[in-house]
Amino acid sequence: MRIAVDAMGGDFAPDAIVEGVVMAAKELPSDVTIVLVGKQRVIEDLLRKYNYAGSSVEIVHAEDVVEMGEHPTKALSQKPNSSIGVGFKLLRDKLVDAFCSAGNTGAMHVGALFSIKAIEGVMRPAIAGFVPQLSGGFAVIVDIGANADCKPEMLLQFGEIGSIYAQYTFGIAKPRVALMNIGEEEQKGSLIAQAAYQLLKDSRKINFVGNMEGGDFFRDKADVIVTDGFTGNILFKMGESIYEMTKELGLSHEFTDKTNYESVGGSPIVGVNGNVIIAHGISSPLAIKNMLSLAKKQVESNAYTKIAQALS
Amino acid sequence: MRIAVDAMGGDFAPDAIVEGVVMAAKELPSDVTIVLVGKQRVIEDLLRKYNYAGSSVEIVHAEDVVEMGEHPTKALSQKPNSSIGVGFKLLRDKLVDAFCSAGNTGAMHVGALFSIKAIEGVMRPAIAGFVPQLSGGFAVIVDIGANADCKPEMLLQFGEIGSIYAQYTFGIAKPRVALMNIGEEEQKGSLIAQAAYQLLKDSRKINFVGNMEGGDFFRDKADVIVTDGFTGNILFKMGESIYEMTKELGLSHEFTDKTNYESVGGSPIVGVNGNVIIAHGISSPLAIKNMLSLAKKQVESNAYTKIAQALS
Repeated sequence: MRIAVDAMGGDFAPDAIVEGVVMAAKELPSDVTIVLVGKQRVIEDLLRKYNYAGSSVEIVHAEDVVEMGEHPTKALSQKPNSSIGVGFKLLRDKLVDAFCSAGNTGAMHVGALFSIKAIEGVMRPAIAGFVPQLSGGFAVIVDIGANADCKPEMLLQFGEIGSIYAQYTFGIAKPRVALMNIGEEEQKGSLIAQAAYQLLKDSRKINFVGNMEGGDFFRDKADVIVTDGFTGNILFKMGESIYEMTKELGLSHEFTDKTNYESVGGSPIVGVNGNVIIAHGISSPLAIKNMLSLAKKQVESNAYTKIAQALS
Repeated sequence: MRIAVDAMGGDFAPDAIVEGVVMAAKELPSDVTIVLVGKQRVIEDLLRKYNYAGSSVEIVHAEDVVEMGEHPTKALSQKPNSSIGVGFKLLRDKLVDAFCSAGNTGAMHVGALFSIKAIEGVMRPAIAGFVPQLSGGFAVIVDIGANADCKPEMLLQFGEIGSIYAQYTFGIAKPRVALMNIGEEEQKGSLIAQAAYQLLKDSRKINFVGNMEGGDFFRDKADVIVTDGFTGNILFKMGESIYEMTKELGLSHEFTDKTNYESVGGSPIVGVNGNVIIAHGISSPLAIKNMLSLAKKQVESNAYTKIAQALS
C-alpha cells in the first residue's frame, strides 16, 4: 500500500508534516509506503532532522506550493507542479492508493473532482467527519463543509454514502442513519430537512432511524449523521472546540480528549473515485500520524469502490 | 411589576412551576407580583405544599390546559380558556408585564403572534437564546428555532433586534453582532449567509463584526450571534448538552454549569409587542426561578418598545 502525503500543506508544513510521517512510519506495517510530495531538498533535510533512516518513506518532488489563501481552481491550473497537483496525478495514475493533505481544503476538493472525479451518480462529493460517541467509537457525519447549500436528494446521498463508508471502514453491519434536525417528529425542520426525511425514510439502501437533535451529537443515536455542509461544519467545529475548552478550564477526560481534531487527524472526501483525506490547517505531527492510520484503514476497506457499486 | 406564569405548562407542571415560583417570590423585590395562571384549586394546594404565605403571588384561574403534543393553532382556538390562552389575554390587556411558560412552545409562539402581535416592520419574530461565554457573561443568539427557513432580510433583522435586546437587557453599549458561518471571509457560506453578510455589513443600525465559526461559540467573538432557526436550534441544543455530558463524565466547572438550561431558565420571543418568555419543557423549579429573574430584567429594560422604535 502506498499513501501520498502533501509535505507542503498546512500551517506548520513542511516541518510538522514530515515529523508526523516519521512517527507514522515507525508504527505502520512494513508493507505501507508513505510518499512525501513536495520540495525534495527540504524534505530530505527534515527526514534527517527527525532521524529517519528506514525504507518506507519515499519522496516525489514537486516544485510549487498552493498557499492556504489561494483560489482553489486558479491555483491548481496555474500550479500543476504544486504538491497538491502532483499528489493528485499520482492518485489518478494509481501510483498511490491514497492522497492526504493539511493544505488548502478547497484546492483538495477541486483537485479530487478534476483528477479522480466524482463517482458516477454522485451529485456532489462531500467531506465526512468523525464524531466521538460517549458510548465509545465514532459516528460519521456527512457533510462537514463541502456543500453549504444542499438539495434533499443530496442529503439522501450523503446518508447512502455515509452508510457504506461506516459499513466498510468501521465494520458496522447495518449502520444507523439519522438526519440532524430540530425536533424528532418527521414534520419538523426546514423545508429541505422535511423533504430529505421522506427520501431517507423511503430509501431501501439504508437503515434510517429518523431525526436526531443537537443535544444527541455525542449520544450514540446514529452511526451516520446526515446534514448539509453549512450546519454540519458549524456543529462539527463546535464539537472539536470542546477539547480546547475543557483543557483551558482545567478539565480532563478520555472522552473530551477524543473531541480533539488530532485524535482522528483527517476527514475523507467521500463520493470520489479514490481515497482523499484532508486535515486541519493547524495539523500537528500527531494529527498527521493519526491521519495516516485513517488513510490505511480506508484503503483496506475499499469503501469508495463499494460506494460506486451501490450507486451504479 | 406583574409577571404571569403558566402554572400548567411543562413536563413537571404544575408542581415544579409552583415550587419555582415560591422560590422566586422569596427572592424578588416586593414590587414584583407573580400571577400564576391555571387551575385555581390545584395551585392553591401547591402553594400550601410549598408553605407559601406571602402576598406577592396571585392566581388567575384557567380551566383548560394546552398539552405538549397539541397542534398550536388548533389548541389555542379550541381552548381559549387554557392557561396559555388566558395568560396572553392578560398580557394583551396589559394586566401583566410579561408572560412565561414552560408549556407547548408552538402554542406560545402562535399565542404571541395572535394576541400582542409582531412589532410593525418585523418580518418574523424569533426566539433568542443565551450562550455563556468563557470570558464571562452571555451572548444572545437569534434565532434558536422559531424560523427554520430564513431569508437574508430576516437574518439582518435578527441582528438588529438582537443588538437592541443586548443593549437594553444586558447594558452593552455597542453590542458586537456576528453572523454564524463556515469561514471568516465574507464570500463564505450558503447563498443565504453570503447575502445576509452584505446586508449586515451595510446596516448602520448595528456594530457588525463579521462572520464567526462553530468553534467560536463560547469564545466572546460577539454579543449577538445571528443565525437561522435551523442551525441555531441545533447549535444551541448541542451547547446545552455540554452540562449533562460533563456531569456524566464526572467533570465539574463553573463554566460548564452555565451551559445548563437551568442557569438562565428561559428564552424570550423577540420581535413581538411584549415580554414573552418560553422555558424548556423539562423545566425544574430552579429553572423557573431563574426564568422569573430574566423576565424581571426584561420588563425593566423595556427592550421591546426600543425595538419597535428602532424599526419604525
